Amino acid sequence: MTNYIRPTIAAMKGYVPGFQPDPKDHYIKLNSNENPYPPSPRVHEMLERTAYEDLRIYPDPESLDLRKKLGNLYGFSSRQIICGNGSDDILNIIVRTFADPGETIGSHEPTFPLYRLLAAIHGSKFVALPLSEPYETPSIPSEKVKVFFLANPNSPVGFGYPRALVAEMARKTKGIFIVDEAYAEFAKENALDLVREMENVIVVRTVSKSYSLAGIRLGYAIGHEKWITEMLKVKDPFNVTRLTQSLVASGLEDQEYFQETTQKIVETREWFFREATAMGFRILPSQANFVFPQPPRKGRGKAFYQALFQRKILTRYYDEEGLRDGVRMTIGTQGEMEEVLKVFKEILPDFS
Amino acid sequence: MTNYIRPTIAAMKGYVPGFQPDPKDHYIKLNSNENPYPPSPRVHEMLERTAYEDLRIYPDPESLDLRKKLGNLYGFSSRQIICGNGSDDILNIIVRTFADPGETIGSHEPTFPLYRLLAAIHGSKFVALPLSEPYETPSIPSEKVKVFFLANPNSPVGFGYPRALVAEMARKTKGIFIVDEAYAEFAKENALDLVREMENVIVVRTVSKSYSLAGIRLGYAIGHEKWITEMLKVKDPFNVTRLTQSLVASGLEDQEYFQETTQKIVETREWFFREATAMGFRILPSQANFVFPQPPRKGRGKAFYQALFQRKILTRYYDEEGLRDGVRMTIGTQGEMEEVLKVFKEILPDFS
Repeated sequence: MTNYIRPTIAAMKGYVPGFQPDPKDHYIKLNSNENPYPPSPRVHEMLERTAYEDLRIYPDPESLDLRKKLGNLYGFSSRQIICGNGSDDILNIIVRTFADPGETIGSHEPTFPLYRLLAAIHGSKFVALPLSEPYETPSIPSEKVKVFFLANPNSPVGFGYPRALVAEMARKTKGIFIVDEAYAEFAKENALDLVREMENVIVVRTVSKSYSLAGIRLGYAIGHEKWITEMLKVKDPFNVTRLTQSLVASGLEDQEYFQETTQKIVETREWFFREATAMGFRILPSQANFVFPQPPRKGRGKAFYQALFQRKILTRYYDEEGLRDGVRMTIGTQGEMEEVLKVFKEILPDFS
Repeated sequence: MTNYIRPTIAAMKGYVPGFQPDPKDHYIKLNSNENPYPPSPRVHEMLERTAYEDLRIYPDPESLDLRKKLGNLYGFSSRQIICGNGSDDILNIIVRTFADPGETIGSHEPTFPLYRLLAAIHGSKFVALPLSEPYETPSIPSEKVKVFFLANPNSPVGFGYPRALVAEMARKTKGIFIVDEAYAEFAKENALDLVREMENVIVVRTVSKSYSLAGIRLGYAIGHEKWITEMLKVKDPFNVTRLTQSLVASGLEDQEYFQETTQKIVETREWFFREATAMGFRILPSQANFVFPQPPRKGRGKAFYQALFQRKILTRYYDEEGLRDGVRMTIGTQGEMEEVLKVFKEILPDFS
């Protein structure tokens, strides 16, 4: 049998998404950083108002209404915004707009694994810099790095670099500097202002977590109009469905609900952090909608994951340097996190 | 201002989608090959049954339910099928799975312009072979072509090569042979059987036209399990939204409605072909849901487009070698096409 596959792809492991359990199995699902609260009721109303006949027509290729709404929300022109089929699509577009195959893309590691995968698929080189602790000055990419991805707040650990530190990194970086702010709505600071100040900064966002709309896929980037214009040429022509465009637009309108649910998650996160650290778990202060708890005994992340799994709590374990001491755990509802704390208490003796 | 854009992208013109008019302007919209009939009522029911709370959860990354349904429909294993965010996404995945940057991709031309664009974005070379007439043996790609795209039925002209001719081409082609069957449901023959017979054949399909679901974006590929497995590694992790997965699944279940609406479009197409040719327009027999009418006087495609536009009929004009004599026109409802014929009669003197 002839092998038609590119060697790069054959050698590659694909992205491994979090386990999606059958709802009937009643797991507490804390493995994909989904929002535990439903989307805004306005999304519900819009869904009910949708004329199914219109599904026969292609979506607006430019998602213009949505870009205007996002622009109004953050104080940018719609021409500075591009929408994608989730922020995965946006990251993909970024790689293909700013790096030629053979050129270098970089990030700190550990981080969101898709940066490295997208670079490999594109035939780019990839340079990983060591991830420094939250308040140390992070490593700066070298001159040859055409695109640098900074996940801030970081995943899977959850800490966030202060805005001033991000600005310093961006200023010292020669290439395009991408701040992936998938979790920024749960953080104290963000890099949107840097887009106005520095031409090499592009901020990537998603409504998956903050607006509880992971199921309908909408990510976006905010950057200099000149770069956004080129990115629009690279995206698939009709990359955002009609339903996603209209439902996300209605979700964005309900800022009150967004503020309220985000605030609840942040409060639960802080409460959980205090309780779990008091119990003896180590957790870095998180700026995201997840935490990375580590039981007292080191190197036991996998067993910890399994102990939680057996008690119907789904988290994520990463078999990677620097991540084997704990698990990544989404912040669920207050009730769910109370359940989790009970389980923490119950299994603590096995991990001390 | 530093320029961060890849020269390839800066030099590139993006894909130009068909004009999307405001519905209030009441155009007869025949410029994007959309289905003139609404989707199946089952899609409506599914939309009404959708629990909006579930939109907070990521979609199934593998679209497994949908792949099983498509597999059952055509007699393939779900492992031989991959779903994408429209067939644009599928074509994008194909390019990145089978061709290294620098390697060669090919098609006949004129054809769907996205093949050439995707190759450019990927850093691949592109070879265009001349499009031969329907019943001549088409040109065969050379050995160095890693991926060859055959749009069959062809766009924008609409003719279809017989299955035997496609088989012959695929057999003589060394690389992966993609049959893009975006319009195959309106044709007499298709290449699905070739997937079973030849390992280098992959068929690409979409529900945009045949199931009247262009607005929610679902394309798919059917091929050897070994290739599909690798393509799954290249796709974006959550490339098909929850709503698209469930709505398309319900549309596929209603085969009776699908057969009925497809049949209506084919009958209208044949009727329109007879009437317009009798009037003096030249039209190649079409196997798709569109035709390419050419008025008697040559080289007047643009003026023809404009004359139709002024009378609220939207079509597409291509300013390209071999396409300047006419316009591409989607087959609308019987009523719409009767309107079009009236306009044809009215403007014929200006184009004779």
